[in-house]
Amino acid sequence: MKLFEVDTLEEARAKLCAAAGPSFVTTETVPVPQALGRVLAEELRSGIDVPGFLRSTVDGYAVVARDTQGAGESIPVFLKTVGEVAMGRPATVTVESGTCAYVPTGGMLPPGADAMVMVEYCEPFGDDGVAVYSAVGTGRSTVARGEDIREGTVFLKKGTVIRPQEIGAMASAGVRQATVYRPLTVTILSTGDELADPAETLTPGKIYDINTYALEALAARRGFVVNGRQVVRDDAAALEDAMRQGMARSDIVVISGGSSQGKKDMTADIIDRLADCGVLTHGLAVKPGKPTILGYDKASRTMLAGLPGHPVAAMMVFELIVCRAVRELTGQALAIGVYAAMETNVGCDAGKSNCILIELLDGPDGYIARPIYGKSGLITTLSRAHGYTVTDRNKEGVRGGETVFVNLL
Amino acid sequence: MKLFEVDTLEEARAKLCAAAGPSFVTTETVPVPQALGRVLAEELRSGIDVPGFLRSTVDGYAVVARDTQGAGESIPVFLKTVGEVAMGRPATVTVESGTCAYVPTGGMLPPGADAMVMVEYCEPFGDDGVAVYSAVGTGRSTVARGEDIREGTVFLKKGTVIRPQEIGAMASAGVRQATVYRPLTVTILSTGDELADPAETLTPGKIYDINTYALEALAARRGFVVNGRQVVRDDAAALEDAMRQGMARSDIVVISGGSSQGKKDMTADIIDRLADCGVLTHGLAVKPGKPTILGYDKASRTMLAGLPGHPVAAMMVFELIVCRAVRELTGQALAIGVYAAMETNVGCDAGKSNCILIELLDGPDGYIARPIYGKSGLITTLSRAHGYTVTDRNKEGVRGGETVFVNLL
Repeated sequence: MKLFEVDTLEEARAKLCAAAGPSFVTTETVPVPQALGRVLAEELRSGIDVPGFLRSTVDGYAVVARDTQGAGESIPVFLKTVGEVAMGRPATVTVESGTCAYVPTGGMLPPGADAMVMVEYCEPFGDDGVAVYSAVGTGRSTVARGEDIREGTVFLKKGTVIRPQEIGAMASAGVRQATVYRPLTVTILSTGDELADPAETLTPGKIYDINTYALEALAARRGFVVNGRQVVRDDAAALEDAMRQGMARSDIVVISGGSSQGKKDMTADIIDRLADCGVLTHGLAVKPGKPTILGYDKASRTMLAGLPGHPVAAMMVFELIVCRAVRELTGQALAIGVYAAMETNVGCDAGKSNCILIELLDGPDGYIARPIYGKSGLITTLSRAHGYTVTDRNKEGVRGGETVFVNLL
Repeated sequence: MKLFEVDTLEEARAKLCAAAGPSFVTTETVPVPQALGRVLAEELRSGIDVPGFLRSTVDGYAVVARDTQGAGESIPVFLKTVGEVAMGRPATVTVESGTCAYVPTGGMLPPGADAMVMVEYCEPFGDDGVAVYSAVGTGRSTVARGEDIREGTVFLKKGTVIRPQEIGAMASAGVRQATVYRPLTVTILSTGDELADPAETLTPGKIYDINTYALEALAARRGFVVNGRQVVRDDAAALEDAMRQGMARSDIVVISGGSSQGKKDMTADIIDRLADCGVLTHGLAVKPGKPTILGYDKASRTMLAGLPGHPVAAMMVFELIVCRAVRELTGQALAIGVYAAMETNVGCDAGKSNCILIELLDGPDGYIARPIYGKSGLITTLSRAHGYTVTDRNKEGVRGGETVFVNLL
């Protein structure tokens, strides 16, 4: 075994990303409705103008704007109607100075017209005339051709996480499929002779397995596909075997469990043996999360992560290392979080990033961040939390009233 | 047709929730892993203490805390080792004053012991002795029986949205299944002779159908099951037929399209005919979103929502009315949002809630809320937005620098 110094979060992620390289993430092309929640792996340019024509946003009359100059509530301008535009059809009439045509909301303005007057400001006059009681400027109550998306421009950037509105934007440009990053597959292992399945009755000294359930849910929520989940007994050969199988099947193998020195050494030894890049990180300068071991195997293209045994620490390290490394490799921006004022002073272990769980309370000027105390072995601290804040390594504490950035969970 | 006044958002939701009643949402029992993202329909009490025994959080020696009084870096206390505890097994030894036993992280403290001393502060001494160089208080480096969850207490409340940590908490208490609200089913209809499918080539006057795609994605994202999606031509009989079919199949039928007066009247007429509670809301005091028609049919237990035709308005009304009404009926708390300082003055239409799309920018003390301008017919305004803020009806504007609450999209 080589000797390692603990890494900072940034160092650990950088090593993991460098070892994995950009080819770790691959792409696939899917129909637009299936792209929801996925990360765009290409920039999308529109092949068309959206909308493709000068479009009315109101029910009313398409006019030549300058014809309406001087019109007002008591002084109408009189225009001759030359016809009506049907929805979804090309305008069959032309509007010239002195004339107008009826256009419903969403309809196409006829050639010659450059603005709409809402029907509320118009009154039929004679057989084929309209009295217009409002002056409108060019473009009024219309959407110009290409005003939403101009042909040839990039309307969605690479690395965009696709939300419903991005699905809508793709649909508007007639895009039928998109190239997105393929979801990474994860095998989740947990070691521990003390772990019982929820189907069993607990015997003294045993606890229910939390980590495979919680990590499976977290991985699914972050867009991974969990294709293996197993509790392994505390036995080096059994763990090595389970890890080998995971490496053959998945892009990422996480092993949680074992914050005891013996288990950490066992996990590190196995990762060192199985991964051709060896152990990259042995210990993280983050609280909780120190007993973390990271490795990468180029031959099978697998990330290997030995996570702490405590559920909260395991989930935080999965989030801060694995999820964020994948975010970096796929070019995603950091997720929106919440700024909040810390409710009380909180002491930190200097020299490491402290990950403080936060409950958000409504305050007079925004949220107040209430730190959640409790040992990292307790899962309920996390189910009481709305999120977490990560302190700078050089800070010895956070003052009450200080603004912190809370990452949402 | 009856005459209606526009409703506020609160009035419209209250009418819809009152018409639907609590029986609109039904429950089902699912295995814990499948409960992710669902809303808990029961309070969960633990049948066991978590953990079920006094548990060590470190590798070290279980001791009687008062034996270590006076111990320090240079003055050890000497204790006799009486054995070792194996992971997942009951302690087979008893610790009495003057003795100690080795316990790995996660192991059970033997009867008699009330604290742990980390192995780093201990040194083997003689054949069966340990020199302890640290004084510890009662409970040090342990988790007490029931400290995470006490038997009989409610550890998850009804209405909780189940995240990975809630899955973990359920697993820790040995809960194998949970009663959650059944996802509501939605049929999404869009009317408009101007709508083309992305598979078609656009002809003049046509635009691609955005709303069924965007609303399907939004509904899926908010936990609904979309079991019907269709573009219907501008024809009362065809729309009525599609709505009848939707009502037979789904809990909610939304019809978007048609902000023109003719289409609004058609949708209102059909809802009035098909829904035994008739039209509940005809027009919303929200911008954008005015041309909204809401109804409820008790016989088929279906919510009917005529949404505006503009994509952004349709999505905002779906979010503010349909999603929030379901949130209320399932007892969910409001989602966490972001407080941010408005970048510039924004004028509002007084007398109605203004829904302002917001791009969040990093500022020196938190986020800055940049209002996104653009006509409500443009879908790209929404794909540039991180969220939206809803103004009070009585406000005539938001001042630059004023703090607003941004709901995330």
